Amino acid sequence: MARSQRQRELYAAAADLFRTKGYHGTSLQDLAEALGMQRGSLYAHMEKKEELLHRITLEAAQAFLSALEPLWETPASPAERLEKAFLAHARVVADHLSAASVFFHEWQHLQGEARDEILSLRRRYEALWRRLVKEAFPHADEGLAVRWILGGLNWMYQWYRPEGPMSPEELAHRFYRFAIQGIGGIDNGG
Amino acid sequence: MARSQRQRELYAAAADLFRTKGYHGTSLQDLAEALGMQRGSLYAHMEKKEELLHRITLEAAQAFLSALEPLWETPASPAERLEKAFLAHARVVADHLSAASVFFHEWQHLQGEARDEILSLRRRYEALWRRLVKEAFPHADEGLAVRWILGGLNWMYQWYRPEGPMSPEELAHRFYRFAIQGIGGIDNGG
Repeated sequence: MARSQRQRELYAAAADLFRTKGYHGTSLQDLAEALGMQRGSLYAHMEKKEELLHRITLEAAQAFLSALEPLWETPASPAERLEKAFLAHARVVADHLSAASVFFHEWQHLQGEARDEILSLRRRYEALWRRLVKEAFPHADEGLAVRWILGGLNWMYQWYRPEGPMSPEELAHRFYRFAIQGIGGIDNGG
Repeated sequence: MARSQRQRELYAAAADLFRTKGYHGTSLQDLAEALGMQRGSLYAHMEKKEELLHRITLEAAQAFLSALEPLWETPASPAERLEKAFLAHARVVADHLSAASVFFHEWQHLQGEARDEILSLRRRYEALWRRLVKEAFPHADEGLAVRWILGGLNWMYQWYRPEGPMSPEELAHRFYRFAIQGIGGIDNGG
């Protein structure tokens, strides 16, 4: 088995474990068992546990950024672009539920340069959202609006299940209408 | 020092540590150091670490429930009651930032009956919110609306700082307007 595939399996298993047991609650033994490997064999694929946390949060940050950055490359009204951002964000959360959860919460256990890097990517992502909101609603307090929107969307990591009744796209579309029209908006009925 | 005061200090220190280091990342040694005690002396005040997690999440759940339950005891329109609920929830998050963070995230490390109890209190709390939303917006999908609202409000645990420019009441008032009018609502400007 090629090393790169083994590493992808390692990152996926680590993301699942960090999500359910917490970063500090996950031992190298847990990881080895999840992968059906000897604990000693893990070191062929990683140096230490913090490296896994760094790679998982980095890939999640890049998934979120890559979903948003192309939105300015095609013609769209600011409102359409904002709705596309809701869809893109919800899709990343749904497709990378464990990594997104680690990115939202466990990242705080990173230290030093790795922590600075993730913080910087989080700020870059939030800046894209502020731009989206400012373009669609020039008079809104875009900083506060982005905290409101990302709170509502990110919280999906706590309750979203792939087997649930609504697709990520439908959820994002409903949340977009809540965000721009309010929960009593004319088309928001069940 | 009376045992009850020592226990309150213990719960507060444990909530702070669980929030910053995670439940599994917090050792009894960390707790003893935070309290300036010998590790062995901790056992006069607790049996095991999971008991601390249980007590902290239980007290947080009760703080949220006690803030909402009285809202039906005084006359108010459904919209006024909903706005009061935003204020009450934001005040609990702001006043119990560490415990709220543990209640939102670290609770998942509880097991058995303690976990069932917290899950049941979370469901009771969410049912109160669904009632608030249904009374104010009879045609809204109140389940989805509550996920949206509680996501936006709960996310405060990630960014709210007591020294920030807005009080919890002002934040809650702005978020209430976002929730009912949308972020482009006429009075939502910065």
